[in-house]
Amino acid sequence: MKPCIVLQTDFGISTGLPASMNAVIVKIDPEIRIYDLCHEIREYDIRQASSTLASTFPYWPDGTIFVTVVDPGVGTTRRSCVAKMKNGSYVVTPDNGSLSYLYEEIEEVREIDETINRLPGSDNHHTFHGRDVYAYTAARLASGLISYEEVGPLYNKEEVIHFSLPTSEIVDGVACGEVTGAHDHFGNVGISIPNEMIKDIGIQVGDKCRVEISKDGNVLYDQEMLFHKSFGWVNPGEPILNECSNDYVEISINQGSFCDEELPELLDAYDLSNYKVKIYPVEKK
Amino acid sequence: MKPCIVLQTDFGISTGLPASMNAVIVKIDPEIRIYDLCHEIREYDIRQASSTLASTFPYWPDGTIFVTVVDPGVGTTRRSCVAKMKNGSYVVTPDNGSLSYLYEEIEEVREIDETINRLPGSDNHHTFHGRDVYAYTAARLASGLISYEEVGPLYNKEEVIHFSLPTSEIVDGVACGEVTGAHDHFGNVGISIPNEMIKDIGIQVGDKCRVEISKDGNVLYDQEMLFHKSFGWVNPGEPILNECSNDYVEISINQGSFCDEELPELLDAYDLSNYKVKIYPVEKK
Amino acid sequence: MKPCIVLQTDFGISTGLPASMNAVIVKIDPEIRIYDLCHEIREYDIRQASSTLASTFPYWPDGTIFVTVVDPGVGTTRRSCVAKMKNGSYVVTPDNGSLSYLYEEIEEVREIDETINRLPGSDNHHTFHGRDVYAYTAARLASGLISYEEVGPLYNKEEVIHFSLPTSEIVDGVACGEVTGAHDHFGNVGISIPNEMIKDIGIQVGDKCRVEISKDGNVLYDQEMLFHKSFGWVNPGEPILNECSNDYVEISINQGSFCDEELPELLDAYDLSNYKVKIYPVEKK
Repeated sequence: MKPCIVLQTDFGISTGLPASMNAVIVKIDPEIRIYDLCHEIREYDIRQASSTLASTFPYWPDGTIFVTVVDPGVGTTRRSCVAKMKNGSYVVTPDNGSLSYLYEEIEEVREIDETINRLPGSDNHHTFHGRDVYAYTAARLASGLISYEEVGPLYNKEEVIHFSLPTSEIVDGVACGEVTGAHDHFGNVGISIPNEMIKDIGIQVGDKCRVEISKDGNVLYDQEMLFHKSFGWVNPGEPILNECSNDYVEISINQGSFCDEELPELLDAYDLSNYKVKIYPVEKK
Repeated sequence: MKPCIVLQTDFGISTGLPASMNAVIVKIDPEIRIYDLCHEIREYDIRQASSTLASTFPYWPDGTIFVTVVDPGVGTTRRSCVAKMKNGSYVVTPDNGSLSYLYEEIEEVREIDETINRLPGSDNHHTFHGRDVYAYTAARLASGLISYEEVGPLYNKEEVIHFSLPTSEIVDGVACGEVTGAHDHFGNVGISIPNEMIKDIGIQVGDKCRVEISKDGNVLYDQEMLFHKSFGWVNPGEPILNECSNDYVEISINQGSFCDEELPELLDAYDLSNYKVKIYPVEKK
Repeated sequence: MKPCIVLQTDFGISTGLPASMNAVIVKIDPEIRIYDLCHEIREYDIRQASSTLASTFPYWPDGTIFVTVVDPGVGTTRRSCVAKMKNGSYVVTPDNGSLSYLYEEIEEVREIDETINRLPGSDNHHTFHGRDVYAYTAARLASGLISYEEVGPLYNKEEVIHFSLPTSEIVDGVACGEVTGAHDHFGNVGISIPNEMIKDIGIQVGDKCRVEISKDGNVLYDQEMLFHKSFGWVNPGEPILNECSNDYVEISINQGSFCDEELPELLDAYDLSNYKVKIYPVEKK
């Protein structure tokens, strides 16, 4: 069975743009199964695209062909590439930071030679590489019409644009990290602190902890809350620090939205790494 | 041909969560066809999930495997189940009220034994059973890797959590019911009064009627309008009581939004059964 | 391989309506591949439906069966039809203007005989022809259960409802056209002026030009900006006239939204042809 193609863009579900990407693939090979990852990545938000792709990447079969197109530089000089991943999957994307969260999983990377890997007749189009270059190349790769080698020339993995990833550490018994996600859906706040690190500072499931969020040294939020396995362990409307299924902790309000109610500015930020988080055992300060 | 899987969640289409459910299924069996019912059920709104599932359930082939995950109790003590329906279809879901509208269609129900029916490696995850338990179990059931009996132990159908369904009756020649749906898309108001009951009180297609909506005894809306087969029988901007294709009446504004223009509070309500509706033949009051 | 079905509606992705269309198709023939064009066409906006369909139509295989349902006249006297296109594709739709942008591509058109081409048991339903008539007919056509001739009687192509399409012309060295699209996603403004016409008035890629938008003779916007191949050639936040991949020019703000920031009224307009656009070479006025 041919590999499937998984599509992610910031094109939105109210345009016909994702449909045209599907069309190009179906026209090349109607047997290819196409799945949507997400077409509502925030416009131009490469960081969100990268982390969303990474969140689902491990669950797909080895050999899957991912196409991710959040592409503020379309039509300019940025490079287009296909990254071959260590598990045999491929990521077809503008080389603009979209690979950051998966950088360690890259085995090698090739630049797409757009003189050959481009929808015939699209030479005059400079704003929809999602259709004309990325979907087209992914479909031809999935169908076996081109080999990976025919994508274009290899280049050094070190040249792949990738921003630094969020970090975490324990300092004086306090778990320190940064905000990694703030989403208007559910309104939870993802944090770069692993579930296990919370236990390493002596906080057990069912204990209270203190959560502090700051930016540029200014404390924006500081409150005690329960630490537990899921948000349902507090009453509706109450905040909680819970283990998330990506193995990192998140702040939730049970059946509410932490972002909307407490820190709406998070929803507008494009670089969340400026928001620092500290988790204290409740006795200490 | 293997049964298809139909997915419904409140995860939203701007996250990667539905994609990860797809991924788990594709990895288990790439031949399974996956369809989206809806991923924009209002967050935590079990009633909306239940009625939306019921609205489309009869149109799918017998034997279809539905997965519906609106799951405010994830990670707590609520039960996970697979309901076997009288037509041979299955519903994989938290047992939290999601089966209410289909309760009469249930033949028997089994609790998912999560010690065996859970994505390997996910034991420490307590917030994404949609991926780790429900999609995983549905895929294994669809592919034939487990039988229905291997889902887990049977339990009494009477134990399945289900809220009471909307009712309707004729009182003194007036059709009485309650609001069953209020949606920001199109803005129509669904009512628990069957199309036929309108005729039973002497109102024919093309007649005028009077529509009253009240809450806690307070009349919120009271207006005469046409009763007809579809909303297009009045001018744009005018209200109408029309037959809906679910066999119940609804209030619409032709090319407008009744909810937005007349009763926006309906859009915020989680339990619409508090909103009572009376339909009067226009001569009476 | 059977032709695929491509679905477009204004039903929204937060209802179960598109799912029921899928259900009807799957029940008739589970082998048919179904793709979504878009289910977030603005409610009742036939013009947007028509232009969105036309934007993706050429990219699908010949023989594809498109279903487009933006249907304010559902349940009234408007005609339902299947248009056979010159490339062997079909469009199943209410005959209400949805075919305007593809009118030249129509080879012939048949009225759907709803006495036979209608989901059994749906005779009393007058508001969901997307499910009961259009999806049903498309599925039976795709599966070969009916021939195109069995759709219903032929009628004259000239009777197909179609509004006049946007035009453009050069007047005294100025490119004159109208707004053709204004979308809340990305916020770009589509214009009926071909990329090539800009060059015909002496503006080359990299030149400055002047863009004027007016309505009813009142100038709403008038500014100089760069003309280039894509929006990425100006700094974030700056406006640009760029070539769009549909071969017409558009106004963008790099990583911003022209509509939101400059002319939000465009987002509310149902008939954009009232908004006239003039592009001047920058020396002239």
